[in-house]
Amino acid sequence: MSKGVTPKSEDFARWYTDVITKAEMADYGPVKGTMVIRPYGFGVWESIKEAFDNRFKKSGHVNAYFPLFIPKSFLSREADHVEGFAKECAVVTHSRLKTADDGSGVVVDPESRLEEEIIVRPTSETVIWSMYKKWINSYRDLPILINQWVNVVRWEMRTRLFLRTSEFLWQEGHTAHATEKEAREETLKILDIYKEVAEKILAIPVLTGLKSESERFAGAVDTYCIEAMMGDKRALQAGTSHYLGQNFAKAFDVKFQNENNKEEFVYATSWGVSTRLIGALIMVHGDDKGLRLPPRVAPVQIVIIPIIKNEDSLVEIQEFLEPFIKEIEKNGLRYQLDGRLKISPGFKFNEWEMKGVPVRVEVGPRDMKNRTLFCARRDTGEKTSYNIDSAANDLKHLLDEIQENIYNQALKFREDNTKSTSNYDEFKSLIKSGGFICCGWDGDPSSETAIKTDTKATIRCILSDVNVAGKKCVYSGNPAKYEVVFARAY
Amino acid sequence: MSKGVTPKSEDFARWYTDVITKAEMADYGPVKGTMVIRPYGFGVWESIKEAFDNRFKKSGHVNAYFPLFIPKSFLSREADHVEGFAKECAVVTHSRLKTADDGSGVVVDPESRLEEEIIVRPTSETVIWSMYKKWINSYRDLPILINQWVNVVRWEMRTRLFLRTSEFLWQEGHTAHATEKEAREETLKILDIYKEVAEKILAIPVLTGLKSESERFAGAVDTYCIEAMMGDKRALQAGTSHYLGQNFAKAFDVKFQNENNKEEFVYATSWGVSTRLIGALIMVHGDDKGLRLPPRVAPVQIVIIPIIKNEDSLVEIQEFLEPFIKEIEKNGLRYQLDGRLKISPGFKFNEWEMKGVPVRVEVGPRDMKNRTLFCARRDTGEKTSYNIDSAANDLKHLLDEIQENIYNQALKFREDNTKSTSNYDEFKSLIKSGGFICCGWDGDPSSETAIKTDTKATIRCILSDVNVAGKKCVYSGNPAKYEVVFARAY
Repeated sequence: MSKGVTPKSEDFARWYTDVITKAEMADYGPVKGTMVIRPYGFGVWESIKEAFDNRFKKSGHVNAYFPLFIPKSFLSREADHVEGFAKECAVVTHSRLKTADDGSGVVVDPESRLEEEIIVRPTSETVIWSMYKKWINSYRDLPILINQWVNVVRWEMRTRLFLRTSEFLWQEGHTAHATEKEAREETLKILDIYKEVAEKILAIPVLTGLKSESERFAGAVDTYCIEAMMGDKRALQAGTSHYLGQNFAKAFDVKFQNENNKEEFVYATSWGVSTRLIGALIMVHGDDKGLRLPPRVAPVQIVIIPIIKNEDSLVEIQEFLEPFIKEIEKNGLRYQLDGRLKISPGFKFNEWEMKGVPVRVEVGPRDMKNRTLFCARRDTGEKTSYNIDSAANDLKHLLDEIQENIYNQALKFREDNTKSTSNYDEFKSLIKSGGFICCGWDGDPSSETAIKTDTKATIRCILSDVNVAGKKCVYSGNPAKYEVVFARAY
Repeated sequence: MSKGVTPKSEDFARWYTDVITKAEMADYGPVKGTMVIRPYGFGVWESIKEAFDNRFKKSGHVNAYFPLFIPKSFLSREADHVEGFAKECAVVTHSRLKTADDGSGVVVDPESRLEEEIIVRPTSETVIWSMYKKWINSYRDLPILINQWVNVVRWEMRTRLFLRTSEFLWQEGHTAHATEKEAREETLKILDIYKEVAEKILAIPVLTGLKSESERFAGAVDTYCIEAMMGDKRALQAGTSHYLGQNFAKAFDVKFQNENNKEEFVYATSWGVSTRLIGALIMVHGDDKGLRLPPRVAPVQIVIIPIIKNEDSLVEIQEFLEPFIKEIEKNGLRYQLDGRLKISPGFKFNEWEMKGVPVRVEVGPRDMKNRTLFCARRDTGEKTSYNIDSAANDLKHLLDEIQENIYNQALKFREDNTKSTSNYDEFKSLIKSGGFICCGWDGDPSSETAIKTDTKATIRCILSDVNVAGKKCVYSGNPAKYEVVFARAY
């Protein structure tokens, strides 16, 4: 357990905030509900972004930028959409400040009141579909496969860094298609990309499936999600991909001439992942010593700590390390040499453990004599000495091993905490100890609501391709329509 | 001259807007003053971003993210700063909408009025320095070298795509240092990076120098700039780097303990370039046929247009091109094969000329027979046939040549339209025909104002390292303090 960090087992929420603060991932901004993503946290976000962005581009998507500001009237064009977002949006009403009459600072200039109020985007379907109306005429203009990496705002009273903040960063894809089939394929293609990046890059195992109606995106026909289990056994929705049908096309009157010269409304999808994923990363992999970052997103993969007495010995060590460092650079590994003087190695060890750096390399006079590097894994604590001549290569493999191990640990944790039941009493007792519960559901929203009222658990996703023949709904005992996963969630 | 595009010589402003629209670089957003950056324009921005970001990182800077929202009171902490930004800011006053009583859509819920109004950042000095106060205690915490890539808002009534919009994208660097010397070095280091990217990547020659007091950033001690000449001979400020002294440290009370255990205010810089650079790119290089993109920022560097009759011949051509395409991919060149059927080659030629793609490759039956590719340069119109086996390599060199040529053309244009004078009557007549005028200035703001009133020209920058001994101010005839460049500007 690290100094100043509440043990995970004692208070998970406090542990989470302590780790974020101590690891310098993020901080609270001056306006309530806002967050500052500090360079170390942002470095993680840059890796995550790159992993998604490469995959989006490879699958034919392009980036663009749509405005932050949306006319108030747009929000109410789609009935469900306004229902979902009106209660939590930042409203711009004026465009000017002026000096207060008593000279005590600045006040809003009442004469700058806007004719129509403006909403700061909570999501961009409306503004984007107002543009698609201008751009789409014929089937030749389709598909449009646009993504944007932007900030969005949803007013929040209870702040939770990375998980629940008024402003957050995300990507939102908005595609337009000539057929339902193509749009539905797009929705699932993106879901696959989300799953792949979550598992391969973030080392977070995820379930995929449909949301029930009550958890569906405001304006969607179908919402698919990737759903992960956090270290406190609660669920976190880590990304969603929506099939929007023709809802937004109808709301914004976006028609196209099909190949048979007939006018038709356009089919749409939208999909997003956000900085929330960083919260997931912390909650899935972290321990009482702090973060444990999967190598593929770690801003620093290898930290090198010289065991030194003064500046002279630092220079000596740097010379010793030179060929090794050249090699790790050639291997494309991200490293940092922590040569700070006047700070003890022990202090540095704790600091870099807190920051979750996957591998720590210690090097002192004895290592120089033996031409070895002493390496410690953050995931297991295991320590090994490597010959310096082959160490760059050994560490490359070690990082792959850590990536895999950290994923397997998370997978095992999820599996150990996933139960099945068909008995509601057992369900209620299981849900108390946390985790995922697989069970049958009759598809009736009232069963879902009753379970939520009794247990605070919600349907995290409806599993696909499950044979429910003979299964019963855990609540009503009626024949099950779906196999679903229930959990208490963030 | 391309269909639907106003000739440059006839109406430069209309030509500019026509090209942006036709080339699908950007479009107007639904809220007045806002802009949509379309995928083609955003592709250019991604290249620009990458060029800067690599250089920032190589010189020790890291990215972070600070909130969009700033408490109203922050803006007035620094006196010049509030003066500069209060008149053009978006003010958030409410956090909720509700259904109108008469059911006619949504209205702002008056009960959601905020206690303190919030400003959408016009720039982030204030919010960042409020955080630096938390993070900086000792000289060991310095320097802080943070940059962010974000959207900012400055209310604009007269919109001009890329040049003047209420919201725009930019990077803003905000650094904190223990000494004035170090901060001043940082300011100039960034100015060098700005110049390098403008000239080497955007192929835009720039002048560098100090701004006069009247054009200085609100809150800065010194503002340096890169200044470019557009195709209509007007000047455009393309980037600024500010030495902020201790102004913001004092406004936010940010002190540090120096090595001698004494408390001192921190020294600061800030610096930014924006999507305005895309406007510069268009105005510097474009012609009556549309954009001319420098290869290093062109989303498509080579467009391949098959001269075909039907889908069968397309397949044949694709087979013929396969080894060539593998080679250009290996060379890291960005290409697009425009295989659209039912669209004539001539139409495609015009479209890709409009989009400014540096090289067009035409390939038809005769080329297949001769194993050649027919290539046309966008910059000169010159056409050459290359043997397909060596073409990938030839085109790589050709793109370098185009990059250089397009820069040289812009440089020549600027040189041809830069004059020197020490006579005010000549000054007034020269300024009428546009361009840059180098002259002496006595350093008196009143001379500067008088010249602006007479001619609408402003000091674009004060040239460094110029010996002004014996020179006179072009306006007052008094001894010149500086050699400056005057121009009418955007």
